[in-house]
Amino acid sequence: MFSQTTEYALRAMSCLALAPEQLVPTTTLAAMTKVPTNYLAKVLQQLAAANLITGRRGVGGGYKLARPADSINLLEVVNTVGSLQRITTCPLGLANHGPNLCPLHRKMDEAAATMIKLLDGVTLKNLIDTPGSVNKPLCDARATQDVTISGSIRVRPAPAGTNGHHR
Amino acid sequence: MFSQTTEYALRAMSCLALAPEQLVPTTTLAAMTKVPTNYLAKVLQQLAAANLITGRRGVGGGYKLARPADSINLLEVVNTVGSLQRITTCPLGLANHGPNLCPLHRKMDEAAATMIKLLDGVTLKNLIDTPGSVNKPLCDARATQDVTISGSIRVRPAPAGTNGHHR
Repeated sequence: MFSQTTEYALRAMSCLALAPEQLVPTTTLAAMTKVPTNYLAKVLQQLAAANLITGRRGVGGGYKLARPADSINLLEVVNTVGSLQRITTCPLGLANHGPNLCPLHRKMDEAAATMIKLLDGVTLKNLIDTPGSVNKPLCDARATQDVTISGSIRVRPAPAGTNGHHR
Repeated sequence: MFSQTTEYALRAMSCLALAPEQLVPTTTLAAMTKVPTNYLAKVLQQLAAANLITGRRGVGGGYKLARPADSINLLEVVNTVGSLQRITTCPLGLANHGPNLCPLHRKMDEAAATMIKLLDGVTLKNLIDTPGSVNKPLCDARATQDVTISGSIRVRPAPAGTNGHHR
């Protein structure tokens, strides 16, 4: 349903949310998200242009979230690389339809509204602090046990008692 | 949210549902749906390959629905030209995730499940026989008043008292 670019953008943002204080190199992000480096680099440029992430070039450079993970919702990410919009007027430009959508476009608008509500209500923080979740996004077993991955990104398990709560 | 191809496929199927007994030429469908003819021709080939429509070449040829409009739902159309599937296993292939999706992919799967349910529950017939709807898909004012459009497709308003009921 989501485009490949959208899937990759969500993976990258989830990955950065796991290590919000670090500048993560594109190559490390590519390895973590299993996305071709060149493809991911373009996605990251779009996310940076939308001010969702900030980057620094050169040795020790990379990307990190531009804002706290609890202030970035999935809808922002999806709409940075794609378009999830309500249908407000007839896409065919039929004069007598206008804002009075026909049943086809009313249903498509209902679908868009449903998706917008679903994605608007979930932040990156929610994804990495889901109560009762065994898995963290993109992390294999080692990653949840405080092991350095790919030489650069370190993911720490949440302190006991805080998992699922916003800090 | 939906790809352009999906939008065009839904327009074409809605259009054919308005005149289920007629073979509608591609050029007429293109005019009705406001889709470039060559683009639409490829979409129609996909719909025909999936046995949603049947076609005949030559003079007097065109396409019509392969089955009654009340037996074709929007999900079938969407999945003929795109892919709207549940996520059943980790898209990254992480061994320790497998069917235990992480919160990111659980949310994306929830979105897919929601869309599938929404589109599975609506047939082409529902679109053209929506109770209380002023507009029919793709039709301008004239089309709802039994006027021949583009020299080929004739859309008759539903007989009094039958609007909204499956016949």
